[in-house]
Amino acid sequence: MMESVEKQTKRPHVVIVGAGFGGLACAQALGKSEIDVTVIDRRNHNLFQPLLYQVATAALSPADISEPIRRTLGRYPNIKVVMGEVTTVDQSRRTVGLKDGVSIPYDRLVLATGSDYNYFGHEDWQKHAPGLKSIHEARQIRHSLLLAFEKAERSEDEAEKRRLLTSVIIGGGPTGVEMAGAISELGRFMIARDFRSLRPDQLQVLLIEAGPRILASFPESLSQYAVDYLTRIGVDIRLNTPVEDVTPDGVAVGGALIPASCMVWGAGVKASPAAAWLGVPPGPGGRLQVASDLSVEGKSEIYALGDTALSTGEDGKPLPALAQVAKQQGTFLGKALKVNLLRGEPVPTFRFHNRGNTAVIGRNAAVFDFGSWQLKGRLAWLLWAIVHVYLLVNFEKRLLVSIQWIWRYATRQRGARIIDENAVAVDRPAADGQISN
Amino acid sequence: MMESVEKQTKRPHVVIVGAGFGGLACAQALGKSEIDVTVIDRRNHNLFQPLLYQVATAALSPADISEPIRRTLGRYPNIKVVMGEVTTVDQSRRTVGLKDGVSIPYDRLVLATGSDYNYFGHEDWQKHAPGLKSIHEARQIRHSLLLAFEKAERSEDEAEKRRLLTSVIIGGGPTGVEMAGAISELGRFMIARDFRSLRPDQLQVLLIEAGPRILASFPESLSQYAVDYLTRIGVDIRLNTPVEDVTPDGVAVGGALIPASCMVWGAGVKASPAAAWLGVPPGPGGRLQVASDLSVEGKSEIYALGDTALSTGEDGKPLPALAQVAKQQGTFLGKALKVNLLRGEPVPTFRFHNRGNTAVIGRNAAVFDFGSWQLKGRLAWLLWAIVHVYLLVNFEKRLLVSIQWIWRYATRQRGARIIDENAVAVDRPAADGQISN
Repeated sequence: MMESVEKQTKRPHVVIVGAGFGGLACAQALGKSEIDVTVIDRRNHNLFQPLLYQVATAALSPADISEPIRRTLGRYPNIKVVMGEVTTVDQSRRTVGLKDGVSIPYDRLVLATGSDYNYFGHEDWQKHAPGLKSIHEARQIRHSLLLAFEKAERSEDEAEKRRLLTSVIIGGGPTGVEMAGAISELGRFMIARDFRSLRPDQLQVLLIEAGPRILASFPESLSQYAVDYLTRIGVDIRLNTPVEDVTPDGVAVGGALIPASCMVWGAGVKASPAAAWLGVPPGPGGRLQVASDLSVEGKSEIYALGDTALSTGEDGKPLPALAQVAKQQGTFLGKALKVNLLRGEPVPTFRFHNRGNTAVIGRNAAVFDFGSWQLKGRLAWLLWAIVHVYLLVNFEKRLLVSIQWIWRYATRQRGARIIDENAVAVDRPAADGQISN
Repeated sequence: MMESVEKQTKRPHVVIVGAGFGGLACAQALGKSEIDVTVIDRRNHNLFQPLLYQVATAALSPADISEPIRRTLGRYPNIKVVMGEVTTVDQSRRTVGLKDGVSIPYDRLVLATGSDYNYFGHEDWQKHAPGLKSIHEARQIRHSLLLAFEKAERSEDEAEKRRLLTSVIIGGGPTGVEMAGAISELGRFMIARDFRSLRPDQLQVLLIEAGPRILASFPESLSQYAVDYLTRIGVDIRLNTPVEDVTPDGVAVGGALIPASCMVWGAGVKASPAAAWLGVPPGPGGRLQVASDLSVEGKSEIYALGDTALSTGEDGKPLPALAQVAKQQGTFLGKALKVNLLRGEPVPTFRFHNRGNTAVIGRNAAVFDFGSWQLKGRLAWLLWAIVHVYLLVNFEKRLLVSIQWIWRYATRQRGARIIDENAVAVDRPAADGQISN
């Protein structure tokens, strides 16, 4: 919306909450300008979430897909990074309040706080079936997966062995599909190569979707391709199957419990509590309704972008919660705020340029939807790999990760198959070093 | 000692406890033979400990220096890997008892259970000043180090800021020296590049040694070189300074508390509880006295090697607790047991071939002691780097790690500067994904 030129002696100050794709892009666009920028994040690193499932399945290390925020923004003298947790926003005094009591003043506030999985009121399910949003959760999943194989190798009890070798992925979106494919391929390969008393056919991977099809955000034909491919690599897909309960021992559907050891939640997305901070009613999925210039409805100094914002595309439909949307919005808003704050020009209307929606299904299978045309199979996988390696923010990582991929693609090896000692010997982590140095 | 040929219908069975350098080398030497081998370890991975300090200082990821034991031994059909914790040895029934009640029979038992740091009766100090023996501990240290910088950046209280920027390393052995050098270099570089409100001269790194010199296992001249180099890069070395107490707020020496945020324990080495399993009196450092054929004194079917064993070299002095000793003993014993069990020949006398003792001090400084001659400085660092890259058990890692080193050496960047969310928001780890995706 329109802004009048602000006469102020001090440099204008933009506060960005969240250093994900959107927040970082916004900060970088404001870099090396006459505007002071403060980036607040609970983490010290920016996480390349599209590849987080590879950490959960031991293909990559956390550091391969993480970048210290300070390193990314270190080259911009006008940007300050604060590691902290936002708990309040005082709109009258124009300050952001942190958990530890510190409050930071702003002239413009950009909310790029991302989203979390939606347990639809069953938050207690999260500890048994973590989502895939953080390194911590990816490690949890990796541990439960690898540890289950070790236990199964030693178990004499057939039923228990079956439970240990069963993984249940809840939600047939891109993350669920990626996890199901990766676990099935990793599991069968590991068993065949490294475990003496297990058989690949004992591995069970279930993909449970409440709706009528998986990859619902993609065209029907691509969903069908995913179903065919996953079924071929041994994933058991259950459609129209709402989850009734998640326990330490498994997942309940259709009144029966499916005994499982590794459970992953990939269903539904819920925006961060940003709406609560502003005291405005959240839109669908808890997202903040924003105007065409990404300002929060009725707030002239507060903007929201990425998964936090509910903005509509030219077709009038809400934009999807994708990294490319957040990134484009961040860059757009950063540039616009620079002009707006320094020259008083209004923030124009944001236009999303669709770069294509993609999901990887297996070792050389992926799908791409460019709207007007689609791509699937090995070629789509190659394109997916190229795009994602390219997107990795940091040159070193881009180089290393691509080498790891090429190597692993050839050898099918997994480099990060570590079970942390604290996960193994929870009772006495201090003694970890004792056996085997 | 002499062994008579054992007439037995079934294949002989060797049980190896611990898959460190010694245990793995022994197993590999027994690979693809007519002998059944079971390798028991509490971890699923073999850890390349000489580089663990680089994980603690965010230069490498855990996976870079870890190798799944199953992958290393997967190619040997006669070797079985069991992930479990040994708690007892029944010498009359010739079985090893695991924590979960399972017992595994053996014809020959090889104890390669390694060592742990010695807190000399102050085990409660460990939670404040962890040693550097496991990935879990390396992560702990990395967290406390990186988190302290983030807190210091935001702290207004000068005293608190000083405490947060103070690291104390206890023990002037190779690990202590490596950590002190790495923390000092990493800290000053990070502060100068990434932190707006900190000055490199605010960083304090103390290396505390109870004895009269650091690197006591090296010749005087190399110790002196280490002192000079460390002092030049800003490490404050305190000799003849026994630690009196370790608290959450710092380390007490000479009756006064040195306020510190990051404390690392690298003093003294204590062998695993193997001696207790056998009910024999442990030798110095809790090590098992072994004969020239590495059999435990008075036990004809039980062998010990590496840090677990106290074996004397040709000079009559006990062999040092070094990876190369464990490795050589493992290979020697594996080959010898093969001949012994299949052809009844006795296990000969083990002879150690000194490949040189080394310690890295900083970013292009290391020391080498080959007994007859020494090497120090940049050339020693290069040799050290080459040797260690070469030693990394797995080709992929060897390749990747060398690339990372070359790259980081040129850019001084740190790839693994991650603070896990569970370390940051210990109070509500479930909500990690919320702020910034």
